[in-house]
Amino acid sequence: MNKNNSEPTSGNSDSGCIYLVGAGPGDPELLTLKAARLLRDADVVVYDRLISAGILAQVPAGVTRFYVGKADGHHHVSQPEINALLLKLAQSGYQVVRLKGGDPFIFGRGSEEASYLQRHGARFEVVPGITAAAACAAYAGIPLTHRGVANGVQFISGRGRHNREPELDWQALAHSASTLALYMGVDSLDQVCSKLLRAGMPGDTPAAAIENGTTRQQRRLISTLAQLPIQAVAFRLQSPAMVVIGEVVNFSQTLDWFRPDSGQPAAASARSMHG
Amino acid sequence: MNKNNSEPTSGNSDSGCIYLVGAGPGDPELLTLKAARLLRDADVVVYDRLISAGILAQVPAGVTRFYVGKADGHHHVSQPEINALLLKLAQSGYQVVRLKGGDPFIFGRGSEEASYLQRHGARFEVVPGITAAAACAAYAGIPLTHRGVANGVQFISGRGRHNREPELDWQALAHSASTLALYMGVDSLDQVCSKLLRAGMPGDTPAAAIENGTTRQQRRLISTLAQLPIQAVAFRLQSPAMVVIGEVVNFSQTLDWFRPDSGQPAAASARSMHG
Repeated sequence: MNKNNSEPTSGNSDSGCIYLVGAGPGDPELLTLKAARLLRDADVVVYDRLISAGILAQVPAGVTRFYVGKADGHHHVSQPEINALLLKLAQSGYQVVRLKGGDPFIFGRGSEEASYLQRHGARFEVVPGITAAAACAAYAGIPLTHRGVANGVQFISGRGRHNREPELDWQALAHSASTLALYMGVDSLDQVCSKLLRAGMPGDTPAAAIENGTTRQQRRLISTLAQLPIQAVAFRLQSPAMVVIGEVVNFSQTLDWFRPDSGQPAAASARSMHG
Repeated sequence: MNKNNSEPTSGNSDSGCIYLVGAGPGDPELLTLKAARLLRDADVVVYDRLISAGILAQVPAGVTRFYVGKADGHHHVSQPEINALLLKLAQSGYQVVRLKGGDPFIFGRGSEEASYLQRHGARFEVVPGITAAAACAAYAGIPLTHRGVANGVQFISGRGRHNREPELDWQALAHSASTLALYMGVDSLDQVCSKLLRAGMPGDTPAAAIENGTTRQQRRLISTLAQLPIQAVAFRLQSPAMVVIGEVVNFSQTLDWFRPDSGQPAAASARSMHG
């Protein structure tokens, strides 16, 4: 892992605590007040991919930072290594913010880290964050639910266990009256859309991809289930991106309020080079 | 509707904007930085049920407040009346925070208000909030997803259109590998659990109800699908409550980190008397 700054200087073995904190989708203003307070007061911040530069800028200069994400030319830090690091920091009495993109308990492995800490007697707390589906959809003018259009929403992941294909009930998904929000779906977009089509979801179902949602680099691709995979190639869609499938995507034409390039307060600074 | 304070005194007809702001689940520290900034700068705040007293305490004294929720002895303000009020305020040039519990685009009717404003040429922006499912589950020690246990999550509502029964695909829900998060489910809890049981969901599926989640008044009821409705009666479960159904509920035993009564920073003040 990458570590900058010196060793954390404070620490009390009785009071160490790991705060599993959701950083939200990218816009630093979508941090919660609680997350901002914990970042200000932390001894150590442990963060991974998808934490934007604007959010890291909220961390005071004296706070020790550990980067545990994957980056070009760097070894990927494994989950057991991250768990062990967190436990060691907690046992050393540090106040640690374990910062995760979005929400720590929605596709964030927060519960794996919490379970490990709990089994080893370390204190932890969970601080929810704005999850990517809610934020990216809102900033793309797409409501996840709307009376008479979508009576619910399903969050699914494009990545299965061990980075294999997702094992999902495609029949149920294809016939659902809910909106589908696909996390980590760029690499498996072709496959997911094909499976939904083959399971009977109409090809003209509205579908959108939102890249770098909520930041100044946000780009929207509004398409259909049948067309999205090929249009995503021409669009050069890259991670991180949220895919939303369902009739609610039609609202993106009229409710398109966000101007990423306008420099309005809503927009955020560039993503970290790690992202 | 109830209005306190005097008429808003500023206003510029060119610059009126309605901010559809998610207030999160109840803990004022789960407001986003953006929501807190907009509340500080607003001319007018329009809010409804489920906005906690602790959140309203963030609104500066000079800001005009409109309460448009239902309350004992008061007339319920209809959605068309709310729409008309928001439009009038925007056309009068006011900066208006339309404050909604949770997230405005998840069971929040935010898109109905946004569509109305858009059709009438008024400016609006959407500010996502922590949705109740994510927050209440996290504060009850329940991850909404967990590798190998739940590969996704579905948000459904216990209230159908025109306040009738929800029309959901019970077969698909009963056989889903996703966690189910039921919003507004107290009144229809018996019905929803019965339908899931009849559709084949095992009666021993873990199920939880979280009342007043994230606040000092939070209460958890950990049960099973078959037992939850009857235990909820003995528990005197009341709205607002989030119901979570699925194997992830088992984590609530080990990951139970939140102490509502301890007065720790995580806890929030009492809910509004309107709530």
